[in-house]
Amino acid sequence: MSLKFNILHHDTITRARTGLLELPHGTVETPVFMPVGTNGTVKGVTKDNLKEIGFGIILSNTYHLYLRPGLDVIEKAGGLHKFINWDQNILTDSGGFQVFSLTKLRKIKDEGVVFQSHIDGSRHTLTPEKVVHIQQVLGSDIFMQLDVCTPYGIKEKEAKKALDITKQWADRSIAYWKQNQDRSSGNLFPIMQGNFYKPLRTESKEFICNLDTPGIAIGGLSVGEPFPVFEEFLAFSTEGLPESKPRYVMGIGTPLYILTAVENGVDMFDCVFPTRTARNGLLFTWNGPISIKQAQYVEDFAPIDTACTCRVCREYSRSYLRHLYKCNEILYSILASYHNLYFLHELMKKIRYTISNGTFAAFKKEFLANYKE
Amino acid sequence: MSLKFNILHHDTITRARTGLLELPHGTVETPVFMPVGTNGTVKGVTKDNLKEIGFGIILSNTYHLYLRPGLDVIEKAGGLHKFINWDQNILTDSGGFQVFSLTKLRKIKDEGVVFQSHIDGSRHTLTPEKVVHIQQVLGSDIFMQLDVCTPYGIKEKEAKKALDITKQWADRSIAYWKQNQDRSSGNLFPIMQGNFYKPLRTESKEFICNLDTPGIAIGGLSVGEPFPVFEEFLAFSTEGLPESKPRYVMGIGTPLYILTAVENGVDMFDCVFPTRTARNGLLFTWNGPISIKQAQYVEDFAPIDTACTCRVCREYSRSYLRHLYKCNEILYSILASYHNLYFLHELMKKIRYTISNGTFAAFKKEFLANYKE
Repeated sequence: MSLKFNILHHDTITRARTGLLELPHGTVETPVFMPVGTNGTVKGVTKDNLKEIGFGIILSNTYHLYLRPGLDVIEKAGGLHKFINWDQNILTDSGGFQVFSLTKLRKIKDEGVVFQSHIDGSRHTLTPEKVVHIQQVLGSDIFMQLDVCTPYGIKEKEAKKALDITKQWADRSIAYWKQNQDRSSGNLFPIMQGNFYKPLRTESKEFICNLDTPGIAIGGLSVGEPFPVFEEFLAFSTEGLPESKPRYVMGIGTPLYILTAVENGVDMFDCVFPTRTARNGLLFTWNGPISIKQAQYVEDFAPIDTACTCRVCREYSRSYLRHLYKCNEILYSILASYHNLYFLHELMKKIRYTISNGTFAAFKKEFLANYKE
Repeated sequence: MSLKFNILHHDTITRARTGLLELPHGTVETPVFMPVGTNGTVKGVTKDNLKEIGFGIILSNTYHLYLRPGLDVIEKAGGLHKFINWDQNILTDSGGFQVFSLTKLRKIKDEGVVFQSHIDGSRHTLTPEKVVHIQQVLGSDIFMQLDVCTPYGIKEKEAKKALDITKQWADRSIAYWKQNQDRSSGNLFPIMQGNFYKPLRTESKEFICNLDTPGIAIGGLSVGEPFPVFEEFLAFSTEGLPESKPRYVMGIGTPLYILTAVENGVDMFDCVFPTRTARNGLLFTWNGPISIKQAQYVEDFAPIDTACTCRVCREYSRSYLRHLYKCNEILYSILASYHNLYFLHELMKKIRYTISNGTFAAFKKEFLANYKE
């Protein structure tokens, strides 16, 4: 294992904590938000801008990179870091989520999952071992096991079946990873599943807690359930996890979800939300997102947020951004994505700071009182 | 007039020359290529990157800005420079070319031109006076007169009619500009027309040479005519122009066209070519453009051009660029546009250098021998 996790502060009121996560490509302060670079680029943002904002870890999607450009290309490039020229950390997911959300004609067997590419319909098989192998070739700093993702609303029997396979696949992933650790310094995280059934979540949690892995991922949340259900199952899933391992909740990125996760002792998150909503015209402010499409911004020469210190807010007006949006200009996506990522990065800084000085619960309350979604 | 033009070197073999063009927002070395920022942004390139490359002047389109966001918005922003936050020079065209190429149902009268917006079908009238007024409000550093643009292949009678109106409009533009010079420090250029009829070109040239304007624009070239016709009419149109005024040929941007124009004593050019072709997958090298779509680049980890010193060539491979192109990623357009503009800027530097040391003709020959289109 090449990961070290040092907890710096525990909040006195909530289960929130700050830490330093040492990874092969640098140390990351937690709780941390990781921007998503699906195809080996965070959409609309250069690596230089990511570094300027302060990101030390991004997420990239194994499923997408495996299909395009393909593993051969990235292997010949010397790994994903070299291929995309990013010298900070990369977490890759397992592709499980994409196989279950993007592809048609997928078939789950004990062995693995067979699916057709959403790009060209070509047929592929992913096994737990192959998924670890792919991530080793990519050279990611954190790997995810292949899991079976299930949507909100399925029957318990189906959820149990998915969990059983996920558990088997965790064992196989870990075995393969341990046998081949000389190939890469990446850190494998198993994934908790169990859908929205507490007995299954308990079963998954107990199973995960007994695994010898450097971190724990919590999957199957924020998959369409109402917020109170998310909150309940997040609290339930995180309760009693070993203190010493970093905890990663996959696919959450709105301030409310992040604050709720932090409150429950989660250390890592990722989501396309800040960049995707930016491209769709939604810009974050400390009073809630604004929709830059609106006519009220036509002659609004103020920055997106007067309280924001980012380059975009220092240099451009809402009026200009709205104009660029209306003209479908690339510069709009560049500036909007930068701002939203900067905003989330600032939010994470404030979260870490308030945890460290014991004011996190008050900060969360105050932030949410001002932040109108 | 707020423009000063100092010629530094005359080529000994061709009519090429170098100069310093002093404008309200800084001094520009000529011959100069101006990137096009149609909607108040050079597509895919930030102002910071434009400055990093070294551009001190861009072109923006009066027609587009007049329709969207509209003159009111830009006036309230304090002019175009402030609206887009660009502190270097801006040349704006007159909108004539767009009215004749983008709109339907246009009607030319002596008074001006009536047309329907290509965006929403709304009805507008542009007169020579109004076009100068618009550019004064924009606060451009160089203005163009409203002209009547004609395509290649029209009859002489039609070309004569267009020229007659263009001449009248030049007089009216200059009169309005001179009466209202307190409003802005912009410099008005009249536009030579005459289609591909030498008597008409001569008439237009003589007319233009007698006008009291700080510079001269040459229009109606590179509008679909074969290259030899372009070359012939470019040479003819530029012959005998006053030495002291900067000469601007509108809408040319390929290396061959630029070199040909420079050879004929032209000082300024603009074109969407480098950025548009970049987005379409064509990347410039000193051996000619490469089409990054091609399968041969899948595992090509060399830079676009090993001889190029740009940030993109220093940091990214053809393989990665091809991958980004295939995935339709914004980063592709960002990097490709940057590289192509950098390449053209380097070409212009070499052109100026070889003019200054008397080797321009040899440079042109050698460049074109290596550059396979």
